[in-house]
Order: sequence, then structure tokens, then C-alpha cells
Amino acid sequence: MPAIDDRLAELGLVLPQPLKMPPGTTLPFPWVRVIGQRARFSGHGPTLADGSVAPPLGKVGGDVTVEQGYAAARLTGLAILGSLQRELGSLDRIEAWVHILGMVNSAPGFDRQPSVINGFTDLILEVFGPQVGAHARSAVGMAELPFGIPVEIEGEVMLRPD
Amino acid sequence: MPAIDDRLAELGLVLPQPLKMPPGTTLPFPWVRVIGQRARFSGHGPTLADGSVAPPLGKVGGDVTVEQGYAAARLTGLAILGSLQRELGSLDRIEAWVHILGMVNSAPGFDRQPSVINGFTDLILEVFGPQVGAHARSAVGMAELPFGIPVEIEGEVMLRPD
Amino acid sequence: MPAIDDRLAELGLVLPQPLKMPPGTTLPFPWVRVIGQRARFSGHGPTLADGSVAPPLGKVGGDVTVEQGYAAARLTGLAILGSLQRELGSLDRIEAWVHILGMVNSAPGFDRQPSVINGFTDLILEVFGPQVGAHARSAVGMAELPFGIPVEIEGEVMLRPD
Repeated sequence: MPAIDDRLAELGLVLPQPLKMPPGTTLPFPWVRVIGQRARFSGHGPTLADGSVAPPLGKVGGDVTVEQGYAAARLTGLAILGSLQRELGSLDRIEAWVHILGMVNSAPGFDRQPSVINGFTDLILEVFGPQVGAHARSAVGMAELPFGIPVEIEGEVMLRPD
Repeated sequence: MPAIDDRLAELGLVLPQPLKMPPGTTLPFPWVRVIGQRARFSGHGPTLADGSVAPPLGKVGGDVTVEQGYAAARLTGLAILGSLQRELGSLDRIEAWVHILGMVNSAPGFDRQPSVINGFTDLILEVFGPQVGAHARSAVGMAELPFGIPVEIEGEVMLRPD
Repeated sequence: MPAIDDRLAELGLVLPQPLKMPPGTTLPFPWVRVIGQRARFSGHGPTLADGSVAPPLGKVGGDVTVEQGYAAARLTGLAILGSLQRELGSLDRIEAWVHILGMVNSAPGFDRQPSVINGFTDLILEVFGPQVGAHARSAVGMAELPFGIPVEIEGEVMLRPD
């Protein structure tokens, strides 16, 4: 069994704190919903280590470059791993990644969504390897995303049987 | 076991009739697809009690206000509950909500999709409570939705074993 | 048990080769991810028989007509069937279609996404019949899609137990 925590340390990766909401705000939904061996995670955006929303905001292909979009997708992946670790206790409980929907806040005419979402996919493959980490995916262009974040990703992982 | 029908009556909620299509039109897909214990529901929009599409149409942040968008998301939830009740026979068969994708027809620059989709989430939590009703979700901005509806929601619930 | 290969031949349908990527490009994700009895397929677009991206490119309701969009959704379905056949060995392993997300690259004001995605749904029902082929679905309008393709579809099928 892989020791994902060791692998994160080896890669020098630190998982961020939960998303910081403005004071007085609460989210009416969980970041991760576990049903049997399935763990479905809500749409996440890019955060800094302290859980604040990571700049830059805006549309990829406009205010945000493809390289910045790739970095945002990687930060989104770290935010998802943080949520999964808090909910599951350990990322070693993940038996397989299943699929993700990679949503890119897209400027008119921007059509390189896959290059952006690769920031997420490359991270997951680095951490989990090709067997566990492989996932079906779509990478598509949204008109708008909450708070102007450039990337939002949702999806599902399968857990090992108890 | 909760008696969801009683709860609906207690809240004064009436589930709408199936979506009224224009005469001669048929939809080639089911509103709910049950596979084992999983019930996946198709994208629904807001309807009135008689199944007609609920006004207002248009983009949230433009012709449609956030408050109207919230109300549309709540009506969309009632339409989904109507479809689930017709397919399942009883909403008491739902063991857990799993996840939803909340799609908001968004005017340029509108980035408060979560405030809109809360109309759906608040309804589900009112009716099913926090244990059964909790669901992973995304709330995102679409370029266009069918017939100009302001909100469309799809997702999945788990059913109790027979 | 239906013999889907025979049915494809009877309908005169030929499944396309895998998507041809530009030389030197690799995709970091699988077209199909099988987890137990679930097979989740990644977002596919329309391809020609040789795996090249099928014209026309652009937005439905703008450069691309509804009829061309319908044809693109049908080609997208054939591309998905090709990926499933390569991954599963035989399409007869499919016990049931579950759901799809039908994404239409939409010109401003275009709201007939269901008419476009019917190109996919009609194909699946022709090949698999109404029991196996029925699927929950959404048909929605995206701001942009990769490489300017007019349609992208992702989803899931259930496999027969071994």
C-alpha cells in the first residue's frame, strides 16, 4: 500500500487549510460526501496554504495566462487533497481516482482548457502514480465561476473496502 | 425512517406535475435512471405546479435577479422531487443525497452562482435533514441553458436496499 | 444477450479510430476508466473514421447549424462507442447506460441544446434499444470547448457482472 503522506512530503507538497469564507458566511454543503466506498467531492477552486482564495482571479485566455491557469488547477488539486485528507483521515484510503470535471473560466475564443486542467492531472499522477491516479475527465470552458476563480474541479474517488 | 411525504405537507410544499412539453414533442430520455441502488436524475429546470416552465427566463445577473435565481433553484428542486417521487413511488426510498451539479445561466460578470444554487440546497436540507440531505455540489456559470431557463440541476441519490 | 457488434453492422455504423493527437502530444488521462462494474468515459468530441477531429468547428447557433450540431453529437457518440469497445473488448459487456452530460459550444442566445444532444441519444437508443440504452442526461450551453469543437459528451455505463 502506498504511503501517500510520505509521497507528499517527498514532493515537498503541503496541503492547504479549508477554504476561508468571509466572516459570518457558512456553506450549506460538505466538501466531500462519502457514500459507501464512493467519495464524491464538491467543486473546489485554487487556494493558498492558509485557505484564502489564490490569485489571480479572472478568465484564462484573458487576464489569466495558460501557465497561471495550469498553476491554479494544481492548487485546486491540493485543495481537493486537503479536503479528502480531512474527511477520510488518510489519503491512503483512496483505492482509485474515478473521474473529474475540469471547469475553466474561459475568455472568448480560449480553447486550450485541456492544457489548464493538466495542472490537476499531473499533480494527481505525481502523488498517486498511474494505477491509482488515472481518472476519466473533461476539460471545458465556463462562462463564469464563483468569485471569478479561473478553475473549478469536482469529481469522485473510490475508497478501499474497510 | 423519515416520512418525507408528511414532511412535505408540514412544509406546505406541493410537487409539480411533469414538465409540459410543446404538443407533439417527446423527450428521448428519462428524468430519472435507476441502476441498482443509484438513482441518477437528468437536468431539470424550474416549473410551476402544472408542469409549465416557471418564469422569469433569462440570465441571472442580467434579466433575472439573484433572489429570482434562488427561487428558480428551489422550484428546480421541487421539480426534481416530483420526478423522483413518480419514478421511485416514494421519496422515503432515498437513503442519501450524493451530489448535484448546479448550473446557472449567467450574465457576463455574474459570479454569485453559489447564492443561487442555495435555493436548491436549502430546500433539500429542509425536507430531508442534514444526514440524508447533505450533498456534494458545484455551482457554476453556463453560457446558455435550454429555452433560456435561469437554472438547471442534475445529480444523484442513493436508495435504501430493498 | 444482444449482439451489439451485429447491430452496428446492421445499421452500417463503423466506429472511428482513437482521437489523433498532434505529433508529440500525449493525453495524461484515459478515455475510459473502469472501476468494478462502472465504466466512466472522458469528454469526447466528434471525430471522423480515421480519428481526426470532424469539421465543422465553432459554436452551434453561430457558425454551426443545429443540424450540423446534431450530426456532431452523433459522431461524438460513435467516438465514445469506439473508446468503450477498445477498453472493454466488447460493447456487449454494457448492461446499462447510466447518464451523460451533453455540452454544446453555444453562440450567444442559442438555447436549443437538447435538439443537438438528441444526435447522441438517438444513436444510443438505435444501437442498444430502450432498456439498455436509456440514460439520464443534461444538455447545456458552454462558453468554449477545446479546439473549438461544437459538442463534448462525458458519462457512465454499467457493465455486466463477470
